[in-house]
Amino acid sequence: MKVSELGEFGLINLIHSNITRYENFRRTPWQEVILGIGDDAAAWQGNNQLQLATTDTLVQDIHFNLDIISWEELGWKALAVNLSDIAAMGGIPKYALLALALPGELEVEDISKFTNGMVHLARELRVAIVGGNVATAPIAIITVTVIGCSKSDVILKRSTASPGDQIAVTGYLGLSAAGLEMFKGKTISDPKLHDVLRRAHLRPMPKVKEGQILVKQGVKTAIDISDGLIADLDHICEFSKVYAKIKIESVPVHPAVTKIFPNYQELALSGGEDYELLFTADEATIARVKQALDCRVTVIGDITKEKLPKRVTVVDSNGNTIPYKKGGWEHF
Amino acid sequence: MKVSELGEFGLINLIHSNITRYENFRRTPWQEVILGIGDDAAAWQGNNQLQLATTDTLVQDIHFNLDIISWEELGWKALAVNLSDIAAMGGIPKYALLALALPGELEVEDISKFTNGMVHLARELRVAIVGGNVATAPIAIITVTVIGCSKSDVILKRSTASPGDQIAVTGYLGLSAAGLEMFKGKTISDPKLHDVLRRAHLRPMPKVKEGQILVKQGVKTAIDISDGLIADLDHICEFSKVYAKIKIESVPVHPAVTKIFPNYQELALSGGEDYELLFTADEATIARVKQALDCRVTVIGDITKEKLPKRVTVVDSNGNTIPYKKGGWEHF
Repeated sequence: MKVSELGEFGLINLIHSNITRYENFRRTPWQEVILGIGDDAAAWQGNNQLQLATTDTLVQDIHFNLDIISWEELGWKALAVNLSDIAAMGGIPKYALLALALPGELEVEDISKFTNGMVHLARELRVAIVGGNVATAPIAIITVTVIGCSKSDVILKRSTASPGDQIAVTGYLGLSAAGLEMFKGKTISDPKLHDVLRRAHLRPMPKVKEGQILVKQGVKTAIDISDGLIADLDHICEFSKVYAKIKIESVPVHPAVTKIFPNYQELALSGGEDYELLFTADEATIARVKQALDCRVTVIGDITKEKLPKRVTVVDSNGNTIPYKKGGWEHF
Repeated sequence: MKVSELGEFGLINLIHSNITRYENFRRTPWQEVILGIGDDAAAWQGNNQLQLATTDTLVQDIHFNLDIISWEELGWKALAVNLSDIAAMGGIPKYALLALALPGELEVEDISKFTNGMVHLARELRVAIVGGNVATAPIAIITVTVIGCSKSDVILKRSTASPGDQIAVTGYLGLSAAGLEMFKGKTISDPKLHDVLRRAHLRPMPKVKEGQILVKQGVKTAIDISDGLIADLDHICEFSKVYAKIKIESVPVHPAVTKIFPNYQELALSGGEDYELLFTADEATIARVKQALDCRVTVIGDITKEKLPKRVTVVDSNGNTIPYKKGGWEHF
């Protein structure tokens, strides 16, 4: 059945039932929800903690291509990119709102797959989808808003990096960009690697737990890598009014990517959409973080004590500056 | 200058500066804001009150026509439709997030006008615009999310109407739909009426204060009229599992609309986008509300004690049922 045959209120009912089917797993934060989907606004019991909110839009043919991404993956990713922003603050995501603008000729079944993908991640990270909006549009435009809180009064900011800080990242960089190259035609014969790249690009796992551990260990500065390592590090430098130097050979790239993609350094520096955490702190704090986190943590450089010609400098193992191309994704 | 020449981060900076220019009027809720636009998420100090959140999308050529609405009015309206949802819960709107998807060929100046319109209403109703997102899209799609709270533990729901309740509305109905007819070519010679209709359709004032007064006076059931009187009353009836009867001659229509638009009853019943409050309560409560509210309050019918063939029945002065066309706006 087409969405246009179901109509606006039918679609709302369908989304509502897809989402609330899981409400009986009423763990936090569902137990604080007073009013979910269906009224003029969602309602929940507030608390005295610091509150966080973020919103992100995925536009068809700009952010995603329906020939590549499945509707289930799209639902996952639309929520994931927002949860990653809460992770980058060290926060706990709690409530999500979904604003869907869609062509009427879409299949209702696809929207169910979309909400299933979103619910899958929401359950995994204990997020309640409490409201939203549906509207007609010539292409699909998905805006998710996530509201969360922070147990600590400290939140991870972009503006708090200090000269002398080490710069570190979680996980591997460039996997998502390598996935995009694969979808653009690069042949990947190993089915396992194919799957790793597909997941990295289409089904990223936001580092929510990791962000909270950073706060606990005393980190104050972080961002998630969405635009690309250089671009996101540049945001930290701009807001903190500092300069950064990174060693290209320290940047963690997955061995399979290094082997198969000759441009692996470019993918890792400027590819974007890794949704790993990029953070800075003094050496002792970074050492504690390495102990506390289950995932890979790599020191890739430092916030310099001196002013440099560019906010972000990339050097090779001999300390020579390496020129880099456009620093990540920018709209318009 | 075109948005594409300014670039994503230039546009964010512009919006940021347009919005925070007014931050020095640091009245509530700005004083609770810990982090506004610019980081991965916005942050503010939470409280133990009941929290509310709503999101709404305006799609170019579906919800608005740039040949009719000015960018300033569009900014106002994009926020207003969300504030109206918080008003319909009896809540206090506090924080707004703006997700803008735009074609790069738009003029930067128009985006400034847009944010000015939004800030204008935000200042008037003491709302802090704390975050958002910008992205490229082939048409303009604007999603605003508003987060608020409620001083009372009672919020105005759709599901609490009781048989015997009176049904009442604030203000006049059909003005916005009459405005739309004017923009579609209906000649309005009186410049004052022209202005009234333009404002009703393009610059609605959400009934935020009025919603809070309803709660204070003991009302439990309300919705804002966005889809149209019949459609929104139908939502109340559906959620409350009750039946409603309204008297067509009691429905408040502006005298100028009655005079000039032969179809004024249809405009008032099904036009939508009035952003007035539709509410139900017992007679004594409605009497108190009439005393407490500055604006016009009109009883238009009642929640019936008996089951009727349709959830919403419209009758004339002789009690005869009047058939009505499609009950308001529905997407797809």
